[in-house]
Order: sequence, then structure tokens, then C-alpha cells
Amino acid sequence: MVIELINTGSELLLGRVLNTHQQWICRQLADLGYEVTRQICVADEGRQIQAAVRESLTRADLVLTTGGLGPTSDDLTRDLIAQLLGRPLAEDPEVVSAIEKYFGQRQRAMPASTRVQAMVPAGACVLPNHHGTAPGLAMEVNPNSFRESGRASWLILLPGPPRELRPMFSESVVPLLRQEFPLAHPFVCRTLRTTGLGESAVEEKIAGPLDPLGQEGLEVGYCARIGEVDVRLIARAEKASATVGDAEKIVRQLLGPIIFAMDDGTMESSIVRLLTERGQTLALAESCTGGLIAHRLTNVPGASAVLNCALVTYSNQAKKDFLGVREKTLEEHGAVSEAVARQMAEGARQRQGTDYALAVTGIAGPSGGSETKPVGTVFIALADEDETVVEKRFNPFDRETFKFVTAQQAFDLLRRALADNVNRRTIS
Amino acid sequence: MVIELINTGSELLLGRVLNTHQQWICRQLADLGYEVTRQICVADEGRQIQAAVRESLTRADLVLTTGGLGPTSDDLTRDLIAQLLGRPLAEDPEVVSAIEKYFGQRQRAMPASTRVQAMVPAGACVLPNHHGTAPGLAMEVNPNSFRESGRASWLILLPGPPRELRPMFSESVVPLLRQEFPLAHPFVCRTLRTTGLGESAVEEKIAGPLDPLGQEGLEVGYCARIGEVDVRLIARAEKASATVGDAEKIVRQLLGPIIFAMDDGTMESSIVRLLTERGQTLALAESCTGGLIAHRLTNVPGASAVLNCALVTYSNQAKKDFLGVREKTLEEHGAVSEAVARQMAEGARQRQGTDYALAVTGIAGPSGGSETKPVGTVFIALADEDETVVEKRFNPFDRETFKFVTAQQAFDLLRRALADNVNRRTIS
Repeated sequence: MVIELINTGSELLLGRVLNTHQQWICRQLADLGYEVTRQICVADEGRQIQAAVRESLTRADLVLTTGGLGPTSDDLTRDLIAQLLGRPLAEDPEVVSAIEKYFGQRQRAMPASTRVQAMVPAGACVLPNHHGTAPGLAMEVNPNSFRESGRASWLILLPGPPRELRPMFSESVVPLLRQEFPLAHPFVCRTLRTTGLGESAVEEKIAGPLDPLGQEGLEVGYCARIGEVDVRLIARAEKASATVGDAEKIVRQLLGPIIFAMDDGTMESSIVRLLTERGQTLALAESCTGGLIAHRLTNVPGASAVLNCALVTYSNQAKKDFLGVREKTLEEHGAVSEAVARQMAEGARQRQGTDYALAVTGIAGPSGGSETKPVGTVFIALADEDETVVEKRFNPFDRETFKFVTAQQAFDLLRRALADNVNRRTIS
Repeated sequence: MVIELINTGSELLLGRVLNTHQQWICRQLADLGYEVTRQICVADEGRQIQAAVRESLTRADLVLTTGGLGPTSDDLTRDLIAQLLGRPLAEDPEVVSAIEKYFGQRQRAMPASTRVQAMVPAGACVLPNHHGTAPGLAMEVNPNSFRESGRASWLILLPGPPRELRPMFSESVVPLLRQEFPLAHPFVCRTLRTTGLGESAVEEKIAGPLDPLGQEGLEVGYCARIGEVDVRLIARAEKASATVGDAEKIVRQLLGPIIFAMDDGTMESSIVRLLTERGQTLALAESCTGGLIAHRLTNVPGASAVLNCALVTYSNQAKKDFLGVREKTLEEHGAVSEAVARQMAEGARQRQGTDYALAVTGIAGPSGGSETKPVGTVFIALADEDETVVEKRFNPFDRETFKFVTAQQAFDLLRRALADNVNRRTIS
């Protein structure tokens, strides 16, 4: 089955906004077992939109578009598609009353321009919009005169705003897909997320052992991202679930300790889960990461069970006041040093009475580096009741990447310690 | 000039990662005066990649691809393009030694698989990679046998990892573009970023007054984003700069106080600039934003001049210990209240001796809401030497959006105060 996704919007091609629709829709479809074959983005320009839809209709069983259904002058998609398919538009009284109701509920007058959203091409199904005024439209193009085979295609038009598109997709598009395109075989995709090894090193360890599963249709993919390498395991066949399960076992055996999460799991959600399971708490003392570690951790619902307080001690004064770092240590070693990282972690842990404390101090740049401590130098400390370990790392990246990678390394230091402590306890 | 961008990567079509390349490259090109006509995304699959490149070569003067140049088995682009264009591959000794040097500097053994990255199609220019091992490749397809006109096209292959792609684009692609595609007329694009008014309200205020400039070729675009509305002013003609300048004057006259930044300027960079200009300092006391305000502020180089310390007091105990919030106030009003927000801001300011302090306390959700204080409720306080103001807001979004919008509102409260203080001083 061939699926193509067309995102319209000049702001996308001018690089003014990020295309979040692509990821969201592709992900929803993949989770249902459907794969998007191609995604295309064109500007809000009649000729471009028509050309893209026409070309997709020559190839695809299903074409989805996003955007261009609103009431303003640059919302062109509805008219252009009706024209392309030679289907006259007519006002749908049910849509008119839905729009009137929408404005009525909000006690606002209905602008005349919004009425254009009730125009529906002949033969199209209306997909109700419960969070806005522009309905979606779905139509079967049968026979599809753009396709050499003449086989039918479905064309579905969705509105641009995510909070309108997303519920409409779940409520109306998913049932339509299940009815019109029942799946011939299951599709299973699992991602194992690793940190600490490069992409080639990861592949070298697992490619050989996974090779025999290729006969069962296993596809292995790698994706190097900042501070991590993802291993993707895919199968599409009757036994897809077993094949991917076998592959996962092999990967876990070979890469176990460096796997920090699965699928949509994040480093921070793993940390919150591990600490919550153990009923343990964490204190944070951040300097160069400037609050990012706390921010990532508090993105996880339930973080309040493990995090009491995070101190972003940017200045030396704050390091002394809130963490008890000694003046003498700062003078002798400088703020970016093993000794200061150690005192930050120990001070945070003691003052907050937590099981663990993580501390980071480093040089995010662009300025502030020296010959002995260049931009990118960072010390990461982890204190628990037994000891304090300090790791020195070198992350010579731009400021934001530096912060992200450093946060990732700090989380991973804690993650490994939590795993080790379990092993230690199990052994003793 | 027709430009097409092809992003390759199965992870993109499986919805596993966000396509940040599209925005970044489109934005870079637009800022240089080049507009991308179409963006396409295909999986790491030979037939798909070749079909997409072939089709783009039928239409475009410039085709850019991203991804598929790495060392793993799903990195196919280099070979597929060489095959498509009928250009034999040969190992480039300079690239081999660059890769050897890369691993040598990191004191790591060079995996044999990385050597494939030194294969270069006949006639291609190598774009050096200073942040990884896969070089980029640029080749002129002349005559372009895929194009009806037979006119030449340029095909540029860039690596997937952003921290390799971005410097390579700036160092190698930009000079090539300037040389091969000099601009016929200037292209000026300016974005004014506003917060506090909806999209239609913004349009209502400025669309009429800007209308006459349409005759000089002014294009006005609006983009509603979370917590902001961007106004985009574009002109492409000899007098483009003057046209956009006139338009900007009108917009500033009508929307002045709600404009917080221009182009790539962020709310946080405006805050750092305003405080630095005044030689003033800020303390932060965050609860529900969990460190995001500090994180955003410390993304700005030079933030250390204005930020001494941020206290992420997630628990009630931390609010008492580090900010001096009173037990009685917490009991009587609850942690999410005007009174607690006020004490947090005043405590942070007094204990840190700063000019200003911002404090936020609210309910990020998904749990923790009640009938009188539903999820999304937040109190934002700003303390200065004269007074403390507290604003109550309601941001009923998902957790991460809640945090972002709340941080934006907190920054904007400070931004407006800084502007007011200037006005007050100027008047008095």
C-alpha cells in the first residue's frame, strides 16, 4: 500500500516553523501498521499544490493533505482539489450550522468569511471538526484517472492547526483506514535507544548476530542523534512480533548496559521510573546546564515524587550560599573543577537530605574557555550515601548542544549507578 | 530558480524523529534570498531515493539531499546517486586521511566500515566535514539529461547529523550558491514576533494600513504559534529593503508594545539584552516550570551577567527552606496561590540581592488539579524594589506546552516592566 502525505504552508518552506505534522501523522500511521512512502511539502500556491496532489494520485492508494482549509485568502486547498478532480462545490447546510454553533458557543459573531469552509466537493465525506471551524474532507477517487492502472485512491484533506487535525485524525481518519485498507499482515517496529557508543561501533556489535533473522524479514536501522544511537527493528509478516522479539533479545544481550530507553521512552523518564521504583530521591546542582536537567526531569509526569529541589547556581556566590562550596576550593581549583563538582553534589545532597545528588559545572561557551580548560570542558558529579564519583567530559559543541549532551551524560551516570546498585545488592 | 530539498531517513517516515533539517535549511536559504520550491522525504530505500532524486532533477536548478552518507548498511545515498548519474566511485585519499585524522584525534581505532565514506563519484567536489567523518558531495549535472530543457542542475549531498550538516552548509554550500546562482534581485524577509494578541486581532490591526504597500510588492504573512503570533513581511524587488522597512515602521507603530523580538530573536534573548543594557540582575524561583525559565535564559550567551541563581523549588519544603515561604501561607492558601507566588518572588529577590525576581507556581498536570484550581492554573509574580505584582493565568495545555507558555508569560511580564520603567524614568 502506497501512502503519501502532502503538507502545505509557505511558512514551512521559508523555514519559519517546524513541520510537526509529518512526525505526528507518520507516527500514528506506523503505530497502526501503515507506512508513509513519501512526504512532500509545498507552498500555499495554487499551481504547486495541484501539481503535488496530481503526482501523488498517480502513485498512491492514499493521499493525505494538511492545511489550506481555513477562511483566509491563502487557504486554497479545498477549491484547488475540487477543480483538479472536476467536482463542483456546494454549501453543506450541516457544516454551516456546525460553524454557527461553534461561534454561538463562544458568544462571538460568525465572520462572513468562515462560511466558505462549508463548501464541500461533490461526493466527499465531511470529517467533523470539534475544535475549530474547518471540517476535513475525504473522497474516493474512483476510477483514478491520474493513475495508469486506473485503480481507486482515497484523498483526505485535513486542517492545519494541530489541535484540530489530531482529534480529527483519531476520530474520523482511523476508522476510515481500518474499513477501506484492512491490513494483510502485522507490522512491528521497535526502537532501542543507546548512549555511549558511536553508530559504527553499535552496528559492529549487533549486525552479525542479527543477520540470520534477515531471513524472517527483519530490517535493522540505525539513527545517530545527539548523545545517542537508536537501533530500529522492523518486521512485517505473520510472525513479525516473534521476529522483532527475538531480535530485541539479541540486542539487549549485546548492548544491555548502554540501552537507556525503548521506543518513545526518554532518558529522563527512565530516571524517574528507576528512582520511583526504589522510592529514592534526587537533588540537582546545576551550573553550566542552567536548569536543563531539572527541566527535562520535570517534563516527566510524577517527577515531583523524586525531585525535591534543583539549584541552578550560576555564580560562585550562589555555589557558596546554597551548596556550601568553599571559597578556598573555588580560588585554588576554579569553579570548573573536579573539587567544586564534588562539593556541589555533596552539598546539595546533605542540605536536601536526598539519596542522590547530581552536580555539573563546566564551560558552555562561546566564551570563557582557557588553554587548560577549553570551551566544552565539564565535570559531572554524583553523590550517594557511600561515595561521590566525578567524571570529566569534553563536549566541544555549540551552547545548546553542550547543555543537552552534558545533561544526557549526567542522567546516564545516575542511570548506570542505579543499575549497578541493583546488581551489587543482588550479588551480596 | 527552482530548489528542491530531499530528506532521506526511514526514521522520518516512521515518525520516530522530527525533521529539523527542513526548517533549518529552508530558513538558511530564505535568509540568503533563495526559496525552496518543494521539500520531499523518502525512506532509506534504494528505489525511493533514486526516484525522488530523478524527479527533482527533472524540475530543479538545485537539488539538496540530506542523510544516507554514513558508514552503516542503510546509508545508501552516495552509491545510489553515483549509479543514477552513471558516475563511477573512487576512493579519495584526502578523505581517507581526514577520516584517519578524525579518529586519531579522538584516540579511537578507525572502524573499517568508515572507509566507505571516502568513495567519491567522478567529477564531484568534496565538501569537508569538520565535525564528523562523512564528507558532503556537490556535483554539476550538465547536461541534465533528466530535464526536458537539458539545462544544468547542481546536486548537493549533505550528511544527516545536524552538527555535521550545519557547519558544512555555512562553510561550503553558501559560497557555492553565491558563485553558481547569483541573485537577480534582493529578497528581504523580516519577522516581527508578538505575544498577547490572537492571529485575527493582529491581522485586523495592521492589514488595512499595510495594504497600500502591496503595490510595491509587499507580502504579509501571519503565523500563529504557541504563545505568539509572527508577522512576516516579504518583498523581492530592487526596492525590497525600503518596502519592508516602511512596513516594519507601520507594524511597530500599531503593535509596538506586544512585539518582543525580531527574526530569530527570542523572548529570552530580549530579556538578557534589556537587563544587560541596564546593568540589572534577576533571580528566579520556579515551581511548575521546573527549570525551563532558567534553561531558556541560560541558552543566551552572556546570561551569567544577569542571572545569579535560579531555585527550582518543586516541593513545599524547598519553598520554605530556600525562599522563606511561610508554613502558614502554604496551609491557608495552598502552594498554588497568589500569596505563595508573592512570597517566592520576594524571598528570591531579598536572599539573592537582585534587582528583579520572577516566581511561578501552578499546576502543570496531568494530575494535581481541583475544581477551584484546575490543571493549567498558574500564578506568576514579579518583584522589584518598589512592588510585587502577581498575575493569574490559565494555561490548560499538555505538560510541556503548559511549561513553555507559562515561561513565555513570565518573561513577558518582566519585559513589559522593563519597558514601563524606562518610560516612567523618561517621563519623570
